[in-house]
Amino acid sequence: MNAHLPHASHRADFPALANDWAYLDTAATAQKPQAVIDAITRAYGVDYATVHRGVYERSATMTQSFEAVRAKVADFIGAASANEIVFTRGATESINMVAQAFGGMQLKRGDHILLTALEHHSNIVPWQMLRGALGLGIDVAPLTPDGKIDTDALIAMIGPRTKLVSVAHVSNVLGSVADVRRIADAAHAAGAKLLVDGCQAVPRLKVDVAALDCDFYVFSGHKLYGPTGIGVLWARPELLMRMPPTQGGGAMIETVTFEATTYAKPPQRFEAGTPHIVGVIGLGAAIDYVNSIGLDTIAAHEARLVKAARTALAGFERVQLYGPEDSAGIVSFNVAGVHPHDVGTILDETGVAVRAGHHCAQPLMALLGVPATARASFGIYNNASDIERLAIGIARVIKIFG
Amino acid sequence: MNAHLPHASHRADFPALANDWAYLDTAATAQKPQAVIDAITRAYGVDYATVHRGVYERSATMTQSFEAVRAKVADFIGAASANEIVFTRGATESINMVAQAFGGMQLKRGDHILLTALEHHSNIVPWQMLRGALGLGIDVAPLTPDGKIDTDALIAMIGPRTKLVSVAHVSNVLGSVADVRRIADAAHAAGAKLLVDGCQAVPRLKVDVAALDCDFYVFSGHKLYGPTGIGVLWARPELLMRMPPTQGGGAMIETVTFEATTYAKPPQRFEAGTPHIVGVIGLGAAIDYVNSIGLDTIAAHEARLVKAARTALAGFERVQLYGPEDSAGIVSFNVAGVHPHDVGTILDETGVAVRAGHHCAQPLMALLGVPATARASFGIYNNASDIERLAIGIARVIKIFG
Repeated sequence: MNAHLPHASHRADFPALANDWAYLDTAATAQKPQAVIDAITRAYGVDYATVHRGVYERSATMTQSFEAVRAKVADFIGAASANEIVFTRGATESINMVAQAFGGMQLKRGDHILLTALEHHSNIVPWQMLRGALGLGIDVAPLTPDGKIDTDALIAMIGPRTKLVSVAHVSNVLGSVADVRRIADAAHAAGAKLLVDGCQAVPRLKVDVAALDCDFYVFSGHKLYGPTGIGVLWARPELLMRMPPTQGGGAMIETVTFEATTYAKPPQRFEAGTPHIVGVIGLGAAIDYVNSIGLDTIAAHEARLVKAARTALAGFERVQLYGPEDSAGIVSFNVAGVHPHDVGTILDETGVAVRAGHHCAQPLMALLGVPATARASFGIYNNASDIERLAIGIARVIKIFG
Repeated sequence: MNAHLPHASHRADFPALANDWAYLDTAATAQKPQAVIDAITRAYGVDYATVHRGVYERSATMTQSFEAVRAKVADFIGAASANEIVFTRGATESINMVAQAFGGMQLKRGDHILLTALEHHSNIVPWQMLRGALGLGIDVAPLTPDGKIDTDALIAMIGPRTKLVSVAHVSNVLGSVADVRRIADAAHAAGAKLLVDGCQAVPRLKVDVAALDCDFYVFSGHKLYGPTGIGVLWARPELLMRMPPTQGGGAMIETVTFEATTYAKPPQRFEAGTPHIVGVIGLGAAIDYVNSIGLDTIAAHEARLVKAARTALAGFERVQLYGPEDSAGIVSFNVAGVHPHDVGTILDETGVAVRAGHHCAQPLMALLGVPATARASFGIYNNASDIERLAIGIARVIKIFG
């Protein structure tokens, strides 16, 4: 049914997919190519040393490798300089850092943050915590009927009290792609900043923060075929320069006395303590891997998978599809009369892994009028066979639940 | 000279030490045994899936493995329950979390924090940031002439305004071991809490938080032969229950609406976002490895290494030794007339890796009256040959600098 979909793709690069498992949960976390695993193994088993502090050669070499990844990340997202890249634990920490640091320095009682109805909890809760601390208002932009951010409505909601707009580049539930540049232009015209949660975008779209003209961009390594425990905060250098640190400790200081401490410049100011050295090395390998295939190729591959999945699922009368036709790599759906957890469990029995739940987006579930959805999300390793298995599994779900 | 020191020890378990490199920088970060590397490789290359959220079997299995490590960590440090273990990026983040969460809920203007003169920056700067935010006082307990915390003096400094005492279990510069139980008793008698920075203790001493009777205990995985990017915060459950979260996001919530969000119970409340899954798995393997040798054996091994190193270094008239005779695994020193960076560089040329610098303990350097020291620190893999190489290297330093 999907003659235009390759049956092999890059699946052979992923050792944890060695059997014919249909892994359709890449939006939760991506599987790792052997090149990333090898880089991690080598970093621990051959090259291991601390960074930034050793006077011995191994540590100097590791520091070079580590800092080279900062430059690689900058290139990957179109940042002007490696110094604009802060390594964090993940996108969640990146957003919390912006909320705490930028929020604390820039926002005052009565200021407003503008979010959207499809945001992940990680782009809601940090702002609520800040609202509680500072007395802010939170506004929520609506969606179009097919589940995209309603850009016109969002822009109309940007008011004189709006200081920050924060949106997902790609919805983790619906796959809808935000019109970031339009939102950036409108935010800037009103004197507001724009944060973009790029977790679901960087693995599937070419991102260029300069072209997007946003002010903050965040993502997680583990969704980009990289290691767990590593993420990125990019911010305009003039913002990073003004942001206070959110954690204190080693590596982020210039001088410490008990009377007074002076902080290092960005990005070190925001990286207290020994960093996740091997996480950074592995992230570098993941970016190399993604670049070796090319994001245009990946985007086209996932677009074909989305089209095939939507076509296959639409063939079942009882399946409700959510999100736009042109979603990026993610398709949410429900089977009428069957709880998505049961859908997920039966699919699991047929060798298909999807996520079932609220996807850390409870407000969006409320908007959709459901407690949960099933979600199939795609990666570089998925192929036509995975979509066929999904369809077979859904047929089985419907048969079992009569 | 060190007939009582094994020449082999467990060195063969560490692939990155395959040559005869004398790695004496374990206090910065420990090398990794093959068992830990294998656990990481298996987690990424065979078992990989997200935790806590998947309805499919692979994710359920990974969740079990992940949560089993929480119980393992609890056992390892004598905690009563896995629910008392919070996974963090590292000890630095753990201390910052206590400063922000406990500080924010418990401390008010005029309250005092009691530290000591040998603390790492990670146990100074977070309290200074809190001092700035809340208007706290910071007191600093002195050291004995041989570089231990002066427990009598510290106890005498605990006053009615002292709300928290925070000390390193083992000094990262001097290796001196704090009398944690006496400090805990005195702190509690005054109604204060005790935080213990266990970074340098857990790799070399058997730790039992119940016997120590502290209130918070923190450490980093990478110093315990585990992966980078993972650490632990242990706190008494009644404190964890009362502590507000420091970061918002997925996994740390019960329900989210734009109006209001309710938080999950500890430990999830403090673990926003996808965790460092493989870091946790690797930490579990590291604890298994350490337990397979036994901390009593490790402590005895490192005590012999310290004695041998101090004896060898004391043989050089120009070498000044710092810290107590019975330090735990760490020996700081200087060579008169030679900057420690030059010491480190020449040692590197002779295949010996030490750290030279302020060791993220600038106030201690000021107290010692030096800008920096050289530091040799030991692990499970070091042996008599490493000490011999250190001595040969120091002889070369002295020869070069005449």
